[in-house]
Amino acid sequence: MKFGGTSMATPDRIRRVAALIAAEAAAGKKLAVVVSAMAGKTNELVAWADVLGPSAQGVGSVDDEADVVVASGEQVTSGLLAIALRSQGLRARSWMGWQIPILTDDSHGRARIVDIPGEKLGAAIDTGEIAIVPGFQGVTSDGRITTLGRGGSDTSAVAVAAALKAACDIYTDVDGVYTTDPRIEPKARRMPKISYEEMLEMASLGAKVLQTRSVELAMAHRVPVRVLSSFVETLAGPDEGTLICDEDEIVEKRIVSGVAMSRDEAKITLFGVPDRIGVTADVFMRLADAKLNIDMIVQSNARQADRTNLIFTVGRRDAAAAEKLMRDAQDAIGFEEIRVDQDVCKVSVVGVGMKSHAGVARTMFEALAEKGISLQAISTSEIKISVLIHQDYAELAVRALHGAYGLDAAA
Amino acid sequence: MKFGGTSMATPDRIRRVAALIAAEAAAGKKLAVVVSAMAGKTNELVAWADVLGPSAQGVGSVDDEADVVVASGEQVTSGLLAIALRSQGLRARSWMGWQIPILTDDSHGRARIVDIPGEKLGAAIDTGEIAIVPGFQGVTSDGRITTLGRGGSDTSAVAVAAALKAACDIYTDVDGVYTTDPRIEPKARRMPKISYEEMLEMASLGAKVLQTRSVELAMAHRVPVRVLSSFVETLAGPDEGTLICDEDEIVEKRIVSGVAMSRDEAKITLFGVPDRIGVTADVFMRLADAKLNIDMIVQSNARQADRTNLIFTVGRRDAAAAEKLMRDAQDAIGFEEIRVDQDVCKVSVVGVGMKSHAGVARTMFEALAEKGISLQAISTSEIKISVLIHQDYAELAVRALHGAYGLDAAA
Repeated sequence: MKFGGTSMATPDRIRRVAALIAAEAAAGKKLAVVVSAMAGKTNELVAWADVLGPSAQGVGSVDDEADVVVASGEQVTSGLLAIALRSQGLRARSWMGWQIPILTDDSHGRARIVDIPGEKLGAAIDTGEIAIVPGFQGVTSDGRITTLGRGGSDTSAVAVAAALKAACDIYTDVDGVYTTDPRIEPKARRMPKISYEEMLEMASLGAKVLQTRSVELAMAHRVPVRVLSSFVETLAGPDEGTLICDEDEIVEKRIVSGVAMSRDEAKITLFGVPDRIGVTADVFMRLADAKLNIDMIVQSNARQADRTNLIFTVGRRDAAAAEKLMRDAQDAIGFEEIRVDQDVCKVSVVGVGMKSHAGVARTMFEALAEKGISLQAISTSEIKISVLIHQDYAELAVRALHGAYGLDAAA
Repeated sequence: MKFGGTSMATPDRIRRVAALIAAEAAAGKKLAVVVSAMAGKTNELVAWADVLGPSAQGVGSVDDEADVVVASGEQVTSGLLAIALRSQGLRARSWMGWQIPILTDDSHGRARIVDIPGEKLGAAIDTGEIAIVPGFQGVTSDGRITTLGRGGSDTSAVAVAAALKAACDIYTDVDGVYTTDPRIEPKARRMPKISYEEMLEMASLGAKVLQTRSVELAMAHRVPVRVLSSFVETLAGPDEGTLICDEDEIVEKRIVSGVAMSRDEAKITLFGVPDRIGVTADVFMRLADAKLNIDMIVQSNARQADRTNLIFTVGRRDAAAAEKLMRDAQDAIGFEEIRVDQDVCKVSVVGVGMKSHAGVARTMFEALAEKGISLQAISTSEIKISVLIHQDYAELAVRALHGAYGLDAAA
């Protein structure tokens, strides 16, 4: 079981989480529980570390010590939850990252889990004791505290489940994964099941239910992950939430499982790029060297015959860096003009059923054309089709596609 | 160097502490620094643990998990101080209790330090790196987090100094140990030196500069401890603060070094106790069995020839428990009446010079009699004389004694 910062925000909420755990324990389950810090606490700790951080040049990294500071947030909640469980008459104890240990590499602030020896933890759980594990934190092989980066507690939970060969229930502030954002399309439905691959695409496309890395880890270790609402008082039934699992376990496959939308996009157009071999490669090598991730790419005819227009998208926060990089290389690349558009968004349909069905793209383009929405770029993967459109049409496009693929809930 | 919670209360103050440490480092010293949690933080963490703590009966102790919660406060400040030092271009790292390790017994919430292997820490310091150690925390031999109880950071500091065979500078909110409380007697003077034995008596008599246990530890390991003000911007000179050291190192011995006063006293009088063998022992065995510490004891004549009055003092917070214990045993002991007076205080004069000087008590009694102060009880040790008086006379008595023993500062 994993509980996020909202669930752990106050002693009262921690007591409610303890009651939920007690119900699972009463059902005869052996349990490990991964917890986040109190909501807001991590930000406070990071702010303190930042304000004291190096302003002078030539000072080495302070990320290792920032980890010491920030990891304390989950230490507090895991101790408090153990206390709350004992108050309800249950056996429980906390296990810090260094006690288990949750071994990571030494990339402080964004460490990756290397190994979790599950023996000690598993032996304690086998005696009927509930193990409370602080999320987000680990320890290097030479005993320094690390943290996994934002959202790392989901990754901790999946990794601990993998080490214990257990399933993982992630309690969060939504009651599952939806066919699309219910705030945009009220007819969105909760999916009872979704495959790891689909969830990865949904997560990377802006459906912020789970951290992408945690889904990758679950897929690699075949950990069944269930997303559940923590705003319930009673035990979750088997049909609640959304189970993220192997494609094989999903009997009723839909061609399209969900519609995702992301506003974190910027479109950069290079006008009048000389139409010679290697120029496109040159542009994208420069961007790659600067660690700027390119998503969609379109080449279109320019006004002159020997020139072309090159369109690509980057994350919105990378737009300024990409623009500067291009302007600095304008002479070398030889383009005539650059334009950056931030008023775009990306809408995607995702589904493992696409692999075996033709006509998925056609349905998409027709549905969008019918609403008068023009496509600025298109990209596809085996289980996903994405289009770049003007952001004013974002919600309209999501609703149109949700209906076109038969995802609307029955009225 | 050890810094308390007031010195660590905000990022700004932590930056000032870092500047102070940097000055010491620039003077060529090898340094370990022990820190408390931010002022108020420990109380907040304890309150959370308490509110979730067991209300139901039959639940085991939660002290081990409360330690996990509470120890986080010092973890935060030690990481922040390491960051602040690196920002000033110094090499520094934090060492958690479990990393050194600071080994303690498993009396969670009030653990005692068993051993600190100083090798790893010492080797790091020898390379010129400043070691930051969270005070108050330790680890059991089987790897659980412990805390040392209130004021435990002073004890941590002395223990780390002992392990490193170093001297210990304790930065606090006073600039040294005074001949008496300067708020009572403005003529009080800072003592340049005081012996461990005297400091122990002063500490236990209510001069709250250092935790008693830290002084005991310093005495046992012969660690020179200096108490200094943290409210300075510049390096402390050799004559600043108060050095707590061996009696032998104090050349100019005074007969009386200081005057201490404690209001944490309650006087309990048992009237009309049967004057037979064993009755006094019976009373004090009952109090000892209930772990109630008795300080002063006086036996006086009662109105009847075969009866006596028994007066003793306990700490004020134990008064109610002692009263109840006595009332419950009234028939067994056979006394006629009990009275509890909370309007008393204890005034003491302390000095190693007493051992070799007669007439110290006489000076005390004369000075108090001259002011019309009557003594309700008296107790003595080799280096201390204490009297119990009405609390209205507390300040008057302190000033009278301070003057009588020639402790007043020159005008």
